[in-house]
Amino acid sequence: MRYMGLLETYKRYLPVNEHTPMLTLQEGNTPLIRAERLSEELGLDMYLKYEGLNPTGSFKDRGMVMAVAKAMEEGSRTIMCASTGNTSAAAAAYAARGGLNCIVLIPNNNIALGKLAQAMIYGAKVIAIEGNFDRALEIVREITAKHPITLVNSVNPYRIEGQKTAAFEVCDQLGAAPDVLAIPVGNAGNISAYWKGFKEYHAAGHTDRLPKMVGFEAEGAMAIVKGEPIPNPETLATAIRIGNPASWKTAVEAAEQSGGQINYVTDNQIIEAYQLLAAREGVFAEPASAASVAGVLKLHREGYFTGGESVVCVLTGHGLKDPNIAIQTAAKEPLVVPDTEEAVMAAIRQLEGEQ
Amino acid sequence: MRYMGLLETYKRYLPVNEHTPMLTLQEGNTPLIRAERLSEELGLDMYLKYEGLNPTGSFKDRGMVMAVAKAMEEGSRTIMCASTGNTSAAAAAYAARGGLNCIVLIPNNNIALGKLAQAMIYGAKVIAIEGNFDRALEIVREITAKHPITLVNSVNPYRIEGQKTAAFEVCDQLGAAPDVLAIPVGNAGNISAYWKGFKEYHAAGHTDRLPKMVGFEAEGAMAIVKGEPIPNPETLATAIRIGNPASWKTAVEAAEQSGGQINYVTDNQIIEAYQLLAAREGVFAEPASAASVAGVLKLHREGYFTGGESVVCVLTGHGLKDPNIAIQTAAKEPLVVPDTEEAVMAAIRQLEGEQ
Repeated sequence: MRYMGLLETYKRYLPVNEHTPMLTLQEGNTPLIRAERLSEELGLDMYLKYEGLNPTGSFKDRGMVMAVAKAMEEGSRTIMCASTGNTSAAAAAYAARGGLNCIVLIPNNNIALGKLAQAMIYGAKVIAIEGNFDRALEIVREITAKHPITLVNSVNPYRIEGQKTAAFEVCDQLGAAPDVLAIPVGNAGNISAYWKGFKEYHAAGHTDRLPKMVGFEAEGAMAIVKGEPIPNPETLATAIRIGNPASWKTAVEAAEQSGGQINYVTDNQIIEAYQLLAAREGVFAEPASAASVAGVLKLHREGYFTGGESVVCVLTGHGLKDPNIAIQTAAKEPLVVPDTEEAVMAAIRQLEGEQ
Repeated sequence: MRYMGLLETYKRYLPVNEHTPMLTLQEGNTPLIRAERLSEELGLDMYLKYEGLNPTGSFKDRGMVMAVAKAMEEGSRTIMCASTGNTSAAAAAYAARGGLNCIVLIPNNNIALGKLAQAMIYGAKVIAIEGNFDRALEIVREITAKHPITLVNSVNPYRIEGQKTAAFEVCDQLGAAPDVLAIPVGNAGNISAYWKGFKEYHAAGHTDRLPKMVGFEAEGAMAIVKGEPIPNPETLATAIRIGNPASWKTAVEAAEQSGGQINYVTDNQIIEAYQLLAAREGVFAEPASAASVAGVLKLHREGYFTGGESVVCVLTGHGLKDPNIAIQTAAKEPLVVPDTEEAVMAAIRQLEGEQ
């Protein structure tokens, strides 16, 4: 049987009616991969929710398919967002799919064409303003309030509705909610969405318990942990480099209501987890994604777990989304040898000896 | 219910026994996305088999999970291949997953670290020889014949076994085999694998018909079309830049037995299809993947179809696999405007006027 995408699969739990187009790129239905080595080493039953296998390579597709479908239902012809990363790629892809225009507004500083190329190939039109990111978002809000253009940044409430389906999938895949759900926290929409999803699935009788929600900010952007906005957030995990999370309040609620917490990890811990995931579990995720695993490692060191708990770590994006970090952290000039069997065998033995 | 990966799902049709480890990164189970606009424009019922949503971003994961599982079953501790692209990434990922060493042998010319970074982050050891690709493959064959190291290049017969599962999925997703299966042809292993899969699923009674197999080489690498090896194949679709396909004979058989053909497309046709897929269907695939769609467009112009046929185009890899092509073909400097609502609205109107 063919999987028909999020809106069809979970329409009972979504703002879908007979006028909502069943837009889909077959987002969702992403793997829940058991972390075999980490489970054994930590004494946990640990899983990776690999959201990088959504169509555009990140979890943003879940919320965007819902937001764009509702924009189409409402007769909008153009969607708009302020974003230089995964949001713009997802917006552009679903706009292309739905036959809408997509406008991406960015600040005119450090324009990284590599990051924008994905949105551009899906046909998005990019405009840069002489101002910063906050100003870009402000202008998007002003324009979309007055013109028949739909805002698809995270303040669009349909984004959270689509994103909550990941919690449904985790329950369906595990047969129950896990003991702990670990997740990176940037703008804090995703932790809010998962918590909403777990609560709704629990209320509907699909799972008999709720997980503890543990969220991890990057140390250089830990606004919620510090309790105040960070004016100039810094972390190599660009997808969570956010100093004033839009969903701050609901993220704190998710942690408090569930008996979890919002914590933080350092960039070094993120990179260690990023490399460990690829080299030990065979899963290549975006650096920001690794914050969930780095966080579980941190909690484990601090004695948080009693042993045997089921833990799901959300990996929000694919490693191919940020090739530069892969090159910087892993790529090195290969050993060069003559083209003989003997020389190559000697090189193999040398490399094996280095391990 | 949790999807358990290819080996578990299709074990009845695979060389899996009680000693075969059920290795998985939850490869397979990839989307079959209806090409809504192309279907309408061409008068076909057209689908895209989006193999870029395999764990490492390409269809190679299907064959590699089988090859590495068999290597583990046979007690091998190290796998080895000659490859600079998708094969090395898949080999490295499954070696990491299975706890094996992975050695990648490459020629010491034009080493593109960006292309190797993915294999390296999964922990592969890369050795460059002072010789060309053919010599690298020769050395891999010599070494793996003598040492307890398993060759996982396409001459490993388990690769085709794993890859054939994509045909099973297409039948399961459509409820039947399509009329036509269109596929890029490089080393020609994939068209051979699909044909084997369709025949086996037909023999098992899961589908009552067989598709016509239409394969497309890139013009600058069209060895099968020309009937002779191409000494210096050239195409921007690097994943099918192969002058002497390893599975030449079985590819020709697939085309002949099925009443299909091996044809070719130009680089311009490939890039056109690549852009069209992203901007009109919302699907971002590797350039080589677009050869299948470019080929269907070519056949359509030549009057090949009578109308209404079901056509599945295989998209072999994710567009994020080749970011440079995306940047070269789509990225352009954004329009820069002052940070006022009026200036941005004027820019939007200007961009919409350009369409």
